[in-house]
Amino acid sequence: MKTKVAIVGASGYSGQELVRLLLRHPHVAISCFTSRQYAGKPVTDIFPKFRGLVDATFVEPNVADISAQAAFLALPHGVAAEYAVPLLEKGIKVFDLSADFRLKSAAVYKDYYEHEHPAPALLARAVYGLPERHRDAIKKADLIACPGCYPTSIILGVLPVLKQAKNIIVSSMSGVSGAGRKVSDEYIFPECNESARAYGIPKHRHLSEIEEQLGQTISFTPHLIPINRGIVSTIYIDAAVPDPLPLYRDFYRNEPFVRVTDALPDTKNVAMTNFCDISARFDKRTNRLVVVTAIDNLTKGAAGQAVQCLNLVFGYDETEGLV
Amino acid sequence: MKTKVAIVGASGYSGQELVRLLLRHPHVAISCFTSRQYAGKPVTDIFPKFRGLVDATFVEPNVADISAQAAFLALPHGVAAEYAVPLLEKGIKVFDLSADFRLKSAAVYKDYYEHEHPAPALLARAVYGLPERHRDAIKKADLIACPGCYPTSIILGVLPVLKQAKNIIVSSMSGVSGAGRKVSDEYIFPECNESARAYGIPKHRHLSEIEEQLGQTISFTPHLIPINRGIVSTIYIDAAVPDPLPLYRDFYRNEPFVRVTDALPDTKNVAMTNFCDISARFDKRTNRLVVVTAIDNLTKGAAGQAVQCLNLVFGYDETEGLV
Amino acid sequence: MKTKVAIVGASGYSGQELVRLLLRHPHVAISCFTSRQYAGKPVTDIFPKFRGLVDATFVEPNVADISAQAAFLALPHGVAAEYAVPLLEKGIKVFDLSADFRLKSAAVYKDYYEHEHPAPALLARAVYGLPERHRDAIKKADLIACPGCYPTSIILGVLPVLKQAKNIIVSSMSGVSGAGRKVSDEYIFPECNESARAYGIPKHRHLSEIEEQLGQTISFTPHLIPINRGIVSTIYIDAAVPDPLPLYRDFYRNEPFVRVTDALPDTKNVAMTNFCDISARFDKRTNRLVVVTAIDNLTKGAAGQAVQCLNLVFGYDETEGLV
Amino acid sequence: MKTKVAIVGASGYSGQELVRLLLRHPHVAISCFTSRQYAGKPVTDIFPKFRGLVDATFVEPNVADISAQAAFLALPHGVAAEYAVPLLEKGIKVFDLSADFRLKSAAVYKDYYEHEHPAPALLARAVYGLPERHRDAIKKADLIACPGCYPTSIILGVLPVLKQAKNIIVSSMSGVSGAGRKVSDEYIFPECNESARAYGIPKHRHLSEIEEQLGQTISFTPHLIPINRGIVSTIYIDAAVPDPLPLYRDFYRNEPFVRVTDALPDTKNVAMTNFCDISARFDKRTNRLVVVTAIDNLTKGAAGQAVQCLNLVFGYDETEGLV
Repeated sequence: MKTKVAIVGASGYSGQELVRLLLRHPHVAISCFTSRQYAGKPVTDIFPKFRGLVDATFVEPNVADISAQAAFLALPHGVAAEYAVPLLEKGIKVFDLSADFRLKSAAVYKDYYEHEHPAPALLARAVYGLPERHRDAIKKADLIACPGCYPTSIILGVLPVLKQAKNIIVSSMSGVSGAGRKVSDEYIFPECNESARAYGIPKHRHLSEIEEQLGQTISFTPHLIPINRGIVSTIYIDAAVPDPLPLYRDFYRNEPFVRVTDALPDTKNVAMTNFCDISARFDKRTNRLVVVTAIDNLTKGAAGQAVQCLNLVFGYDETEGLV
Repeated sequence: MKTKVAIVGASGYSGQELVRLLLRHPHVAISCFTSRQYAGKPVTDIFPKFRGLVDATFVEPNVADISAQAAFLALPHGVAAEYAVPLLEKGIKVFDLSADFRLKSAAVYKDYYEHEHPAPALLARAVYGLPERHRDAIKKADLIACPGCYPTSIILGVLPVLKQAKNIIVSSMSGVSGAGRKVSDEYIFPECNESARAYGIPKHRHLSEIEEQLGQTISFTPHLIPINRGIVSTIYIDAAVPDPLPLYRDFYRNEPFVRVTDALPDTKNVAMTNFCDISARFDKRTNRLVVVTAIDNLTKGAAGQAVQCLNLVFGYDETEGLV
Repeated sequence: MKTKVAIVGASGYSGQELVRLLLRHPHVAISCFTSRQYAGKPVTDIFPKFRGLVDATFVEPNVADISAQAAFLALPHGVAAEYAVPLLEKGIKVFDLSADFRLKSAAVYKDYYEHEHPAPALLARAVYGLPERHRDAIKKADLIACPGCYPTSIILGVLPVLKQAKNIIVSSMSGVSGAGRKVSDEYIFPECNESARAYGIPKHRHLSEIEEQLGQTISFTPHLIPINRGIVSTIYIDAAVPDPLPLYRDFYRNEPFVRVTDALPDTKNVAMTNFCDISARFDKRTNRLVVVTAIDNLTKGAAGQAVQCLNLVFGYDETEGLV
Repeated sequence: MKTKVAIVGASGYSGQELVRLLLRHPHVAISCFTSRQYAGKPVTDIFPKFRGLVDATFVEPNVADISAQAAFLALPHGVAAEYAVPLLEKGIKVFDLSADFRLKSAAVYKDYYEHEHPAPALLARAVYGLPERHRDAIKKADLIACPGCYPTSIILGVLPVLKQAKNIIVSSMSGVSGAGRKVSDEYIFPECNESARAYGIPKHRHLSEIEEQLGQTISFTPHLIPINRGIVSTIYIDAAVPDPLPLYRDFYRNEPFVRVTDALPDTKNVAMTNFCDISARFDKRTNRLVVVTAIDNLTKGAAGQAVQCLNLVFGYDETEGLV
């Protein structure tokens, strides 16, 4: 029998990507699509690409009505926690794509998200859903805090050399879907097309989880570029690793979704996949290691990684529905 | 009477941009458009956008036939020097957009460009054509080595804090016209669209001139992104400059083409202009200064800057033809 | 002395294009930029690309305060007429970029725009601002109804064969700036990028003015494509014109902004210009003439054509500020 | 046991799409990837997106070495026929994605493709691989001529009203992958980005098969637009069909890959899918039916349709590997 899952907040881009992935997952059935904004409307009115594939209607996000073994929360931070608490009480495993449970410290959360944490008691219970780092803990968890897109691309790039890493500096470029399905004048086509820009420096919110996971203070600049999907992170590390590729290959040799490549990564090679492509060069002129990673921000950076975590929690093959 | 200028190698993107700018320059007339590939063809066959504005034909690039007071060389490195020598002998001022005369050292040139310098005797005579740094020398020069696009965007970002700058790390993003009008499978539309990728690390050729101008070794990663025109450079500097904007504003207060802005720069605001937009943030968490610059790679990064230099050499208002 | 002009509704894309063009017009000075939304803010806060070029602040659109000899109305239909009336009363020449005065019939206006015409008494006074068709009338007018972008691209394509034209069918493609600076979920980058779609059929509002100018009923399908600027119209006409190019060339031989070309037009060749490029093929298999035109929707399709009309009204060279 | 298939000419975009689709087909195994250009190289060197998914090397296209039950020919016209003949002799079912076997008449072929047909004896044996039109014949065929991308989008739009259709006029827009992985200056990014243009009129090669299938002469204008994948065809038909949607829905009610929609189709909704989306409007003003269709040119317009045909020939569920 298939595992019943609810997608809470299904009408944004992460929700849409969850639908895309779960539709082809052999062991999962979506039992409920919630959307406050579109309740009562057919899912395919909002996502016409699923016509012929989905026959369902958005419903109001009422926890009492949700009958499922797992729930994905594709909600804004602050809101997600409100749903996580009662869902967990109902015995539903929660895969939260928001930032609400990614940090261990409610104080750091408040510093970065500018409001009190809505459910601090759950912070210790949550597991950071990066399988390459916390696989065993994820398997046993019922509250998975799925990492942000930038953090996924950065942490995976640093992990193999974390012990010797110093002075980490990261420049990332993201496609516009990373802003969500947000209707704002800065995201309309003529303002994004033929545009490239840095934003959110020097203290982007994602820094908090990156630094907690890496255990050090870093510099991070995100940039917005005119592609739909994809993140490239270029990571400078003071680390004497003259021949990094064998080390990276060895570190990730058993990982199904990390590909260490000779060639430098390109978003187009990971688009619509759950892969993280990584390459690295050592610059002997400056004694710095330069690591470049690429992911699809909506897949490995959000929905795909959440499904990967679901596979771990429910004992399915980790790649189910993802290749 | 107008100054007669020749554009040698007029059929690439830098050549096209020179045509666009010089057409509206009140004191300049283009006397000759050379193109080995298109000799005999109307200029507007290759650049249909100039129909109705240009009535001329490409000719073979024979120095003997060139009658002009100034020549722009929009040629590949190695080739440009071959033309510069006889043009200078004819008393023609040379504005070279290639890399041939940007470096003072023929040895460094060989190291980066992988062939012997074709005219090392001229290296001392050439002036690096960045007006914001070498204005007085440019005014007296007859051989101007116009800077590369990445170097322009980076050097202008560092100059105001050059004295205290350490550990400079740069991530740049460039539009595809930066590769020139190059027909190669990596530059066809479906390979560039929806693609973002680093390339040329750790030792891109432009490093040589950046490091010569800045007097220090730096880390530099260029990236290719799907826009036509524009470069954004994000520059990390170990420099204790807690309030950088007033310092930058003061440094550039008399510069007609540098705009220091509160908001972070965006390529779309400098596209088709000769402006370099600069902003900066000090990150007190890491004690690093983050400077972001944006230029149009074909204008301030190539043809526009060359015209700016011509204005200096010929005593015109520095902004003539450029605003 | 320069002619003082007001831009009423200066904060949209047509307003921005008017600013770009008028800044380089030798005989015009912008005396006033109005914007209800941004009143009190520097123009360059909204249009950062004009930093260093414009030093002005948006003001409320109060007719009493407007001191100018000409006013451009870049306002929504219905609203424009409210301003036109008192501006004309003050003796200010009005160049209206909205649809309010393009039609002669208030009834047709109501049919297409779904509200009563706000100033029907002015309809007879207004001149349709297509210089290639109504040049002499424009010169004497004080209320110019600047044509829509689609109509410009279509009417210019049909005019040379209007007498024999039957069964006109038009497919047009437009860049997203054609929708104005409209913040709506259908215009955010991820919904437009990698998207091509027809819309507004079978009765797009622009049909009304096209049909009035051409004197016949036509079929018209607009499409939205992911470019910033530009319209291509492909026009099928039942007309036995076996050799159309000489006929078109002759018809437009004195027009400064129409270029009849052998090659099929491309938006990139007219972007940022006031040109309309036209080519045509006769299909002897079907006895149909196929005419293809390209314009920049914001220039020849809006602001550029308005400036062209201003030049006619004020007796300047028709191309002033436009090449 | 899985059906072994060869992909002959696997290094272009159609070949790449075949690989993508066949990798997830449960009943098929790719036994051979040929590429004259890349023979000896790993498939993933050319298609890095398949790293971790494909472990194979391109081989020379020698028919003698091909061991398979089916072969897809993703080769240029003229070349494909050379392979089809010996492959058929070996008893291998041939799915030809080129134009070589789409027409019944060698004379029409010569007229449009400008060389003698290389294997006219096979023309009668070939079946035009459009399942919605020739399903039963496809099931029994061993030589399937897979339709072109434009023809698929057009024929499917006309079929439901074919009997009453007159004066068919089609405007189509295609993404750049439709030109194949062709390295030519007209397809480099800066020439396609921000560009929209008609081409190939009035007698594009695809007309020949469209007209043969529809049994009438039509007007057809293809346009190139800056998207990677997708075709929109807007079809004008003189046909008195005041309420077309129910008629279209009924006609396609059993078709798994045709979706008749109220909303007008958008390439982004069919990208990476085998769906053809269709909508229609009747214009009572002109008595014309306007039909709009959208497909992914590489999927329903090439590789996906070929796989759909394979499913029919080998008795698999028609949607296997395609949803």
